[in-house]
Amino acid sequence: MGSGLVDRVLAGDVRAGARLMRDLDDRLPSAEVALRALWPRTGRALVVGLTGSPGAGKSSLTDRLIGHHRRAGRTVGVIAVDPTSPFSGGAILGDRIRMQDHATDPGVFIRSLGTRGHLGGLSRSTADLVAVMDAMGKDVILVETVGVGQDEIEIASLAHTVVVVAVPGMGDDVQAIKAGVMEIADLFAVNKADREGAERTVRDLQGMLELRRIVQPSGRDPHHGHAGLAEVAAAEAGAFADAPSEAWEPPIVRTVALSGQGVEALAEAIDAHGAHLAASGEKARRDVARARSAFVAILRERLLASALARLELELGRLDHVAERIAARTADPYQLAEELAARVRGTP
Amino acid sequence: MGSGLVDRVLAGDVRAGARLMRDLDDRLPSAEVALRALWPRTGRALVVGLTGSPGAGKSSLTDRLIGHHRRAGRTVGVIAVDPTSPFSGGAILGDRIRMQDHATDPGVFIRSLGTRGHLGGLSRSTADLVAVMDAMGKDVILVETVGVGQDEIEIASLAHTVVVVAVPGMGDDVQAIKAGVMEIADLFAVNKADREGAERTVRDLQGMLELRRIVQPSGRDPHHGHAGLAEVAAAEAGAFADAPSEAWEPPIVRTVALSGQGVEALAEAIDAHGAHLAASGEKARRDVARARSAFVAILRERLLASALARLELELGRLDHVAERIAARTADPYQLAEELAARVRGTP
Repeated sequence: MGSGLVDRVLAGDVRAGARLMRDLDDRLPSAEVALRALWPRTGRALVVGLTGSPGAGKSSLTDRLIGHHRRAGRTVGVIAVDPTSPFSGGAILGDRIRMQDHATDPGVFIRSLGTRGHLGGLSRSTADLVAVMDAMGKDVILVETVGVGQDEIEIASLAHTVVVVAVPGMGDDVQAIKAGVMEIADLFAVNKADREGAERTVRDLQGMLELRRIVQPSGRDPHHGHAGLAEVAAAEAGAFADAPSEAWEPPIVRTVALSGQGVEALAEAIDAHGAHLAASGEKARRDVARARSAFVAILRERLLASALARLELELGRLDHVAERIAARTADPYQLAEELAARVRGTP
Repeated sequence: MGSGLVDRVLAGDVRAGARLMRDLDDRLPSAEVALRALWPRTGRALVVGLTGSPGAGKSSLTDRLIGHHRRAGRTVGVIAVDPTSPFSGGAILGDRIRMQDHATDPGVFIRSLGTRGHLGGLSRSTADLVAVMDAMGKDVILVETVGVGQDEIEIASLAHTVVVVAVPGMGDDVQAIKAGVMEIADLFAVNKADREGAERTVRDLQGMLELRRIVQPSGRDPHHGHAGLAEVAAAEAGAFADAPSEAWEPPIVRTVALSGQGVEALAEAIDAHGAHLAASGEKARRDVARARSAFVAILRERLLASALARLELELGRLDHVAERIAARTADPYQLAEELAARVRGTP
């Protein structure tokens, strides 16, 4: 039964894939057994992340990119982590929702990931969905994620290629792009490029790229590098560290997703980046970074589960512990240290 | 020296507070010792979270709220987790940046938290800053956070009162608000309410609140509830669970932060929510949820640090482990399980 599911996923069976994803969402132990069996058969897919502010048109671009890959004969998986994406079912107002054209195409598999209930575990969950689609044989996996805050930067530990989608007419957007994202972007799409202000947005991005070249002439690539074991934060982040980077200048592509204008150029730029990754050896480095990030996320969850079980034995229910902390009769640092020491087996 | 720092923080010394925050950022062991010493003296401050899309005007509203509290004789701490906030220094374009009026007021203490390097630990870091400001004696702590994705929902595990800031003229915004955020909002501010479309935004929000009342007549409060120990995800989230909630209908307040219009009404609504929290016993429940969330975050980090140190002894450097996983000669699930078992001391 379990192995039957694994075989069916490997055969690309849509129902089996959907079933496994549901089981993962329900945290069934059998789902993890299945993921373990699938692991050796993953690592083939090219993972492309699209990130940007709500309203930037990430979903429309994703839709266009699906069409591009399908015409090239590639199968496509889509994961929408964006609560505003029509793919994720998050949009309820109905006035500007483009339903997915590809829902009935067996070469396209679309799944969404709610942010609700996945706090602290969103990247783990996304990585699991990527692994399932990879095992199903999807050639390309597009991950659409909202572009401000943590989720956006986590995409760098999941994707081979990160596309940052900007739009003109919102000065704030380029500001929002500034923090952290300049460092994860492999390409920029200036979408809605027929709007007033598009050239200014392009110029702003060019200026920021220029600034980056001046500030960091050796390049700084958040996708790889190595983490000292003490550097927990770096490990959690999938190891953002300095490392010499091959010469890749993030191109800026003007697109109008609604009409399709510029989408071929964007797709070609994504392909060019894929070729660059392969030729420079950067793909292998990013694959190691992805593996590290996946491992650390799994380890963290496993350890916390063990510790919380132990907590119940040692200290009582988590709620009671929290009440003592809230009443200031216990401090959370000492309790965490004590519990971690007991889990380690040292007194 | 260490205890001197603690005493100075408790006396509200700005330099000592800033120093401790820097030490926390650098993860100095002495900083955690200081936090432990401060813990019994925290729990006094009212923590108010402001969340919303980039460009919604959260920083301007924060600025106005600082003024309101100062006039009422309250000291204020501000934490900007928003990369686009002028408080966080994240905005570099300069064309629409209002510098903080309160930089020279000793009753106001402003700090920002970069999202960079804090992946997976952002809420832990924010909670630490809140604790320091609380220990410094700030009466009110305003936490400004970008409003889409995980960070936004994490604010619910940190704040007593969550203000969701919406703006007219971006249909997407109300869609963005939809997912998850309706459940964490204690108040809505419709900012830039002098703009066209403000009434529609208000009506949309009213409609969504109406819908929530129909769908969840008993109310659903993400701030409290209890987590079974097996429910790691819920524990990580600070336990979002169903629980009967006192009758609090999130008010919708129209504001124009630039002119100050409506800001007094917003401040009064925030105060009314604070009074409601106290009168209903909800404040104590939220304090327990905050304590639980802080404890679980600290525990998770501690355990991971121990395990990564163990990993080096057992398996070699994390990079080498990641290489084996990427080469598919090892699977991350099994390695994580083995390591967790060894950390637990079971074979």
